[in-house]
Amino acid sequence: MPAKYVAIAAITLDGKIALHKHHMSNWTSKEDKTFLRALLNKSDVIIVGKNTHKTAEKPLSKRNCLVISRSARRLTNKSALLTYVKPIKAEIQKIIRARGYKNIVVLGGAQTYTFCLKNDMLDELYLTIEPLAFGRGISLFEGDKNLNARFNLISTKQLNKAGSLLLYYKK
Amino acid sequence: MPAKYVAIAAITLDGKIALHKHHMSNWTSKEDKTFLRALLNKSDVIIVGKNTHKTAEKPLSKRNCLVISRSARRLTNKSALLTYVKPIKAEIQKIIRARGYKNIVVLGGAQTYTFCLKNDMLDELYLTIEPLAFGRGISLFEGDKNLNARFNLISTKQLNKAGSLLLYYKK
Repeated sequence: MPAKYVAIAAITLDGKIALHKHHMSNWTSKEDKTFLRALLNKSDVIIVGKNTHKTAEKPLSKRNCLVISRSARRLTNKSALLTYVKPIKAEIQKIIRARGYKNIVVLGGAQTYTFCLKNDMLDELYLTIEPLAFGRGISLFEGDKNLNARFNLISTKQLNKAGSLLLYYKK
Repeated sequence: MPAKYVAIAAITLDGKIALHKHHMSNWTSKEDKTFLRALLNKSDVIIVGKNTHKTAEKPLSKRNCLVISRSARRLTNKSALLTYVKPIKAEIQKIIRARGYKNIVVLGGAQTYTFCLKNDMLDELYLTIEPLAFGRGISLFEGDKNLNARFNLISTKQLNKAGSLLLYYKK
């Protein structure tokens, strides 16, 4: 069985994951947070960018994380649960193969989602659309060119009365 | 009955309405285009930004349009169906009241959606989420500050097998 990369994100209806890079996800619904925790509980490892890891350092401290950082040395084991790695596909996949990870959750932020999408490390996507608009902020993907990536919508589920909507896509 | 402002937009799953300001909506599903036409057919007037009007000049030529343009003189009647107006709330609402428009469709682009959202001229929103990601481009809203606008999800409808999804929100 090959490794499966599952990205998960909560976005506003205008496609924003945060207002700025230090913005915590204090605006998402509790139903989304519950779903997120359940997905993380089933994962072997979480791929997360350095900034996003910082905004959620405490809840992530008990989870197995690969932190993507441009300034990391090629591979740095900070602890049994925490490895820093450069955004280099071959390096990351080498770790994943060596450690036998199969269920990989991509937790963001935008640069990490974009890196994974560009490098065929995004097989599935759980997207919760919260019923609000920021009007500005950081988009789900922040690439420098059109990726034109097609997905298939597999299922939709309304999470609460206000209308948080969980969409499940496959590439 | 007060005038009702209904915004309609097709976005990618990463919240983009276009790759750049001259990008036509040649990437949206035919089901979305059908829905859009039906909504426009029921409208009294369409509020549209100058750039968006240019990308759709021919299909819009038979429709009643208020084109928002910063460089317009306060009010310019180009023809019976085409009026240019500055992005000034009082000016636009004066025209709408004087002409008795009730069903107003806000067609974009980003600056026009943002202007309407900021100025309480966006009561409802039809959002079609097409199952693809650009990875970059123009967001639904392009504001200079956090608008934190809450919506309620009224209904969802899957438009086709690939998973174009029509969401209907009220403010």
